[in-house]
Amino acid sequence: MTSQRFEDIAGFHAWFADRLRDNDHEITPIALDAVGGWRTDPVSGDIGHDSGKFFSVRGLEVSTDHRSTGTWSQPIIVQPEIGILGVVIRVVDGVVHCLMQAKMEPGNVNVLQLSPTVQATRSNYTRVHRGKPVPHLEHFLAPRQGRTVFDALQSEQGSWFLHKRNRNMIVEVHEDLPEHEDFCWLRLDQVTDLLREPNLVNMDARTVLSGLPFFFAQREDDAGALHPFEHLLSWFTETKARFELSRRLVPLASLPGWHRGDGVITHADGRYFTVIGVSVRTSNREVGSWAQPMFRPVGRGLIAFLGRHVGGVFHVLVHARTEAGTHDVVEMGPTIACIPENYAGLGPHERPRFLDAVDWDAPARRHLVDVVHSEEGGRFFHAENRYVLADVGEDFPLDVPDDYCWMTPEQLTRFVRFGNHVNVAARCLLSCLVGETARLQVIGS
Amino acid sequence: MTSQRFEDIAGFHAWFADRLRDNDHEITPIALDAVGGWRTDPVSGDIGHDSGKFFSVRGLEVSTDHRSTGTWSQPIIVQPEIGILGVVIRVVDGVVHCLMQAKMEPGNVNVLQLSPTVQATRSNYTRVHRGKPVPHLEHFLAPRQGRTVFDALQSEQGSWFLHKRNRNMIVEVHEDLPEHEDFCWLRLDQVTDLLREPNLVNMDARTVLSGLPFFFAQREDDAGALHPFEHLLSWFTETKARFELSRRLVPLASLPGWHRGDGVITHADGRYFTVIGVSVRTSNREVGSWAQPMFRPVGRGLIAFLGRHVGGVFHVLVHARTEAGTHDVVEMGPTIACIPENYAGLGPHERPRFLDAVDWDAPARRHLVDVVHSEEGGRFFHAENRYVLADVGEDFPLDVPDDYCWMTPEQLTRFVRFGNHVNVAARCLLSCLVGETARLQVIGS
Repeated sequence: MTSQRFEDIAGFHAWFADRLRDNDHEITPIALDAVGGWRTDPVSGDIGHDSGKFFSVRGLEVSTDHRSTGTWSQPIIVQPEIGILGVVIRVVDGVVHCLMQAKMEPGNVNVLQLSPTVQATRSNYTRVHRGKPVPHLEHFLAPRQGRTVFDALQSEQGSWFLHKRNRNMIVEVHEDLPEHEDFCWLRLDQVTDLLREPNLVNMDARTVLSGLPFFFAQREDDAGALHPFEHLLSWFTETKARFELSRRLVPLASLPGWHRGDGVITHADGRYFTVIGVSVRTSNREVGSWAQPMFRPVGRGLIAFLGRHVGGVFHVLVHARTEAGTHDVVEMGPTIACIPENYAGLGPHERPRFLDAVDWDAPARRHLVDVVHSEEGGRFFHAENRYVLADVGEDFPLDVPDDYCWMTPEQLTRFVRFGNHVNVAARCLLSCLVGETARLQVIGS
Repeated sequence: MTSQRFEDIAGFHAWFADRLRDNDHEITPIALDAVGGWRTDPVSGDIGHDSGKFFSVRGLEVSTDHRSTGTWSQPIIVQPEIGILGVVIRVVDGVVHCLMQAKMEPGNVNVLQLSPTVQATRSNYTRVHRGKPVPHLEHFLAPRQGRTVFDALQSEQGSWFLHKRNRNMIVEVHEDLPEHEDFCWLRLDQVTDLLREPNLVNMDARTVLSGLPFFFAQREDDAGALHPFEHLLSWFTETKARFELSRRLVPLASLPGWHRGDGVITHADGRYFTVIGVSVRTSNREVGSWAQPMFRPVGRGLIAFLGRHVGGVFHVLVHARTEAGTHDVVEMGPTIACIPENYAGLGPHERPRFLDAVDWDAPARRHLVDVVHSEEGGRFFHAENRYVLADVGEDFPLDVPDDYCWMTPEQLTRFVRFGNHVNVAARCLLSCLVGETARLQVIGS
């Protein structure tokens, strides 16, 4: 291979530090009013790009019979375009390698993170911004060479995006690709290790990697599972049919409880998130400088699967979850997904279910996964979540509310193959298990 | 079993004739203005039920880059409620039996057809109409007894319904059910035979029966298939990502080319369909009499799969099809689905693709399926389609346009398990193959 490879993780870190040093990045929060190239509609207050492309920030009124707060309003990012998140893989000496990119995103706490081979909105790759072409894009646009291993339309953060989804792709090639200073080949075991490091593998990479199991021969049997697959399908259908979710776009300026002032949009209680402006100058992106609105959450989130062994086989507790922007009523999410600070001081019935089932501050030896990752640094500013897979032990009850269901990680992964079944939080947690699932099967037996 | 069973098909037909004779039915087309219980909005012209339930007829403006006619307007049925279409099955002496119902629907050309065990809108089964309870409903509402074999939300006619879908369910029971004069148990081979008779097994039964293969052990391998399953997934994702479909509800009274007069809504060219009123009196439904609007197509439709053997294995040519009301851009449909009369006299480039690839009037010995079936008699008046599976032979080119793809019936069936992948026309054609697929594999080898 001519592109960068590493014998050990130290080699990777040295290269990655170089990538950060060799590029200049300057990211500055600015007032929404000062975001060049974007305009606020004088009547509705909606914020959009002058070209009408990229995305817009609008108001959304939500009503559902599924969540405890049945009706609410919030700012939301509307981005109807389908982008491409693609990872090129290649087998060398019998070992899977992934072509990853050191990519700057303005919202990243540490500026540079590891992204998929291609991470491009349609506006990007059709070059609305008239910037440099997207490297390696040809592997993901038809007609393409190489074998498509995985290709699904997947949802993104439903709390902040309306109906947003990206095409998640994994394509296998059989030859090396042209060298590029921001790209490197990582062995699968190296990727697995890096997924345990904080704020390193970005959200776009994590969601694509949740499809990597489809490169390997699939068992697709329910041996040892609490429920056969048809039960899981029926449970999911039941939750979709039972609950209602209706949404209506409304003027951003009219949202009760939300206020624009001092160059930002904030919630009256100081909860949820703030809409801010950001100015960017950089040397390693298609365009050297730009400004844009971003969402900045008020605190660090918690995304957790509770898991336990059942008859020697590890299961996770999946939640059929409704979010403001969910494509079709519910998707399968982790047991818990919230910003705990939003619920500080509330009584047990007002706090998210299962949030208090685990002592999150206790020593983490029971947590099979426990790592802080960043969300999409292109839209979210310093948005961190703690991803946890907690083994709650075999005393934990198997009887759960109707909108929860126990399944094995392998069963949940089967749904990843079909778009809009498993939400981005659950997919990101699954990606942390790539290479782990086999070990889990053994622990309890 | 205490409910009706038949040694042979003649026994069934005698029973079915009795069902028709023992009930009184009176179905009369009436002016839309005379449809009691329904009102036309004086401003928009939209037609809705006084209760706000059941369904409404509104106007839809469609624009897409997928079909040859990129932009059009049409009346459309809006029915956001999810109903239940459910078949109870039971294995007796090793043979699968289905509990079917002789059910009157006002739109049926022959009044009575064979329907699923349960066929009920949410308005029906929550008894908005204050009628009799729906028999056997308890097998399909949680918590239910019996094993759920199949449970998916499936789309219905996208040309006439906006986002309509029903829950398709098959539930296995292990004991006989209480006798009811309108219900009978049919052996699977009897169902298969009846699916070859014209206008007998209704649409609701056909779509549910397309899920019956999941009762049997699934192979789920791609042996002999032209494309591996991941290629089919990628093809479907590609068509969803490539094409755009946007819809906007508009006042029914404002649709260009459509006109309300003489008690009906018609298209200026006399094409497509007419919206009419119907008055109903009957002795075997939950409610004895009612009136409602219905859609009446201008002619008999053609729904056809072109098929051929590839390396000894039978394949069908699937079309990624966009319709006005399609849930998510495209679903997998038959090779051809149209009302040929709408295209009479047009040049070859204006006629639907592949319509002229087969001589439809030639002796039908090459057609593996060739039968006229009715569409949903609760919404559509005398809507018949000729369902054909035509073996076009091994000279037919394998190279097809991007929005078509060859797959085996078994591969297509795998997608049926996940809702909103395979459209109702394709599912109904697949149901005619239940019990046939094995034979097809043998023919060409």
